[in-house]
Amino acid sequence: MNTDAREQTVNLGAGPSMLPTDVLLEASQGIIDYEGTGIGVTELSHRSSTFKNLLTQAENDLRALLDIPSDYAVLFLQGGGTEQFSATLLNMLAAHAAKHQGQGGAPPVDYVVSGAWSSKAYKEACRLYGPVRQVVDMRKNIRDASQPIPAPSAWNLSSVDENPAMLYYCDNETIDGSEFPQDFIHQLPEEYRQRVPIVADCSSNILSRPIDIRTHAVVYFGAQKNIGPSGVTIVVVRRDLVVDPDAVHTSYFPRIPTTLVYKNAVDNGSLYNTPPIFPIYVSGLVFKKLRKEGGVTRAQELAQAKSKLVYDMLEQHPSVFQANVAHAHFRSKMNLTFRILDANTGEPSDAEEARFVKLCEEHKVVQVKGHRSVGGIRLSLYNALTLEMAQKVVSLMQQFVKA
Amino acid sequence: MNTDAREQTVNLGAGPSMLPTDVLLEASQGIIDYEGTGIGVTELSHRSSTFKNLLTQAENDLRALLDIPSDYAVLFLQGGGTEQFSATLLNMLAAHAAKHQGQGGAPPVDYVVSGAWSSKAYKEACRLYGPVRQVVDMRKNIRDASQPIPAPSAWNLSSVDENPAMLYYCDNETIDGSEFPQDFIHQLPEEYRQRVPIVADCSSNILSRPIDIRTHAVVYFGAQKNIGPSGVTIVVVRRDLVVDPDAVHTSYFPRIPTTLVYKNAVDNGSLYNTPPIFPIYVSGLVFKKLRKEGGVTRAQELAQAKSKLVYDMLEQHPSVFQANVAHAHFRSKMNLTFRILDANTGEPSDAEEARFVKLCEEHKVVQVKGHRSVGGIRLSLYNALTLEMAQKVVSLMQQFVKA
Repeated sequence: MNTDAREQTVNLGAGPSMLPTDVLLEASQGIIDYEGTGIGVTELSHRSSTFKNLLTQAENDLRALLDIPSDYAVLFLQGGGTEQFSATLLNMLAAHAAKHQGQGGAPPVDYVVSGAWSSKAYKEACRLYGPVRQVVDMRKNIRDASQPIPAPSAWNLSSVDENPAMLYYCDNETIDGSEFPQDFIHQLPEEYRQRVPIVADCSSNILSRPIDIRTHAVVYFGAQKNIGPSGVTIVVVRRDLVVDPDAVHTSYFPRIPTTLVYKNAVDNGSLYNTPPIFPIYVSGLVFKKLRKEGGVTRAQELAQAKSKLVYDMLEQHPSVFQANVAHAHFRSKMNLTFRILDANTGEPSDAEEARFVKLCEEHKVVQVKGHRSVGGIRLSLYNALTLEMAQKVVSLMQQFVKA
Repeated sequence: MNTDAREQTVNLGAGPSMLPTDVLLEASQGIIDYEGTGIGVTELSHRSSTFKNLLTQAENDLRALLDIPSDYAVLFLQGGGTEQFSATLLNMLAAHAAKHQGQGGAPPVDYVVSGAWSSKAYKEACRLYGPVRQVVDMRKNIRDASQPIPAPSAWNLSSVDENPAMLYYCDNETIDGSEFPQDFIHQLPEEYRQRVPIVADCSSNILSRPIDIRTHAVVYFGAQKNIGPSGVTIVVVRRDLVVDPDAVHTSYFPRIPTTLVYKNAVDNGSLYNTPPIFPIYVSGLVFKKLRKEGGVTRAQELAQAKSKLVYDMLEQHPSVFQANVAHAHFRSKMNLTFRILDANTGEPSDAEEARFVKLCEEHKVVQVKGHRSVGGIRLSLYNALTLEMAQKVVSLMQQFVKA
């Protein structure tokens, strides 16, 4: 297998993103002949014991990595994070209806908007359901050093007496480059935190630091950042919130298409219908590797070390670089976004950024352009990116500053 | 890459099923370094021109293979055929509402039930929507030689004056082993056929024979039989039926979760959210190979030749084998299902079937057991299975008869 070109390339894409070479080398044999079965992994029946063992192992490794308690189910689903915008809402409305036996009418649902992805989730909730409350919009605050970021105690939360069906937030905003400080959500008023199911989209920072699953009702994440190839989305959901939506259906929320019903996945061990075998397989290899190499603790140390290299460069050269996230404690350790300034005007400059992108590409450091909606530069330093690769990127930033 | 064990194995699984070895060998390099980019295919940004070219090529090859007219869109989606049980119904209800501007209230929808999969689709329609009509249930007829199979002219169709929103059928029933004769659906009354959108699930026989796309509103198929790895579902939909469901929403059908809305996929060239890259990539390789090797015409010849070998064996040994599908013209060329009879009682015998399964496994012919819901034997002879492999299977049947 030829890995020459690969070894010279540093892929900073925001997702789908780079995967460890040793994992891909194992997968390249696995798709031909999985562990000597004579059958490639994607040719296995999903009902075979061989595949079920693979799935169980992947789940167990993930449970160990994230310390997932046994009263939470782990689901391997399709449809991406975007499908979970709909599924989290609809399943939590069903869980609410089951708990309150349809009494009290349509409950409020609370959404924290902190960037592009949580904003999309909020819009989808508005499409599908009426009483949706945006409890805070911190997008401007995040970009403006003069505006403090509102603490959860200051959010415009629904009253717990209204029995909100859920609170939704996105832990790391891939496009904006912001990330909640770890356990930020613990600052919610205690009664609210204990009574309201909390749903977190952790697509772009899962496995890069610990997360307290027990604080949450649902933690979900698409694979294609820190985990594996696109095509699988993992949902961790507290079992007492998994209900049959048809048994509790009321007129205030729509019928849930069968593939979005968590109970179907729970009752069938993620085999309600044919699962996306390859993405699950590679995700399992990544889990195994991460466990062997120190787990989330080690991943967090690396994420801190790698991101510090870049953020230190930004701080040291304020006339060249400007972080998109003004508040240092809200800066993502996964997606580092910044603008490059024109030396004369001090304003962000598309031309300077193009020059930096070109320099990177000449050194085979690729996919450093910011998302088309925000422009600028985005360096995604996911788990598969080594410290050495981050050092190479920073040396190019250094070279750019000097030039 | 070690292919020894693979070359000795004949995989007759019903799906996920076998894929051509040369395709998998190309993919095993592609996931390490896609065409010299230094990036594995699953690590490409789905917004990159490299991936967009891959996607366009896959679509164009499929269009050529199936002769898909330009007024049909081709969508690469997630969620499997099961998600299309919901999506076909909801999108056709939206298309109906747009055409009739919400006049006339909730339209009927017509379902043909011919086996396990169409039955599931019908049940999902009943869950999500009220006026669902089962126009025929031919499951008993299919298994009983004394009961003719009702022709479409005899089905209990909704009147065209009621403006039914769709007719749904499954072209090949993977579990039951039945398949509609080619172009069977053309026997529908002409006015009905021209006015009612017809939806076909072709998951398990697509690319094994021609299909007249123009007769249909929607033709959809999961990849994991004749196409590629599980995780992508392809939807071919007539463009004039693709509407914004929010613009025409009425109270008689539920809001459609955003990932199930065809218009989102159409407007974004299947990149509304991150697509399942690996399954799309491998599907594209299979399309390219099939075009090179004679297309659907050649695949059909092979399917006829391979299935004839097996069905001839069943006909020649009626005291040993009994086809599940009593009517020869309804027998699937993809999934061949039969029982093995006890020599003394003449009744289907689990013990005899276990003996046959064991014989097959001793010769590395694997996954020949029938679906758990029907028992018996199922031989799935998908496109990737060569004539030589089919001959090996038949020689084992011969050996079994002699023993």
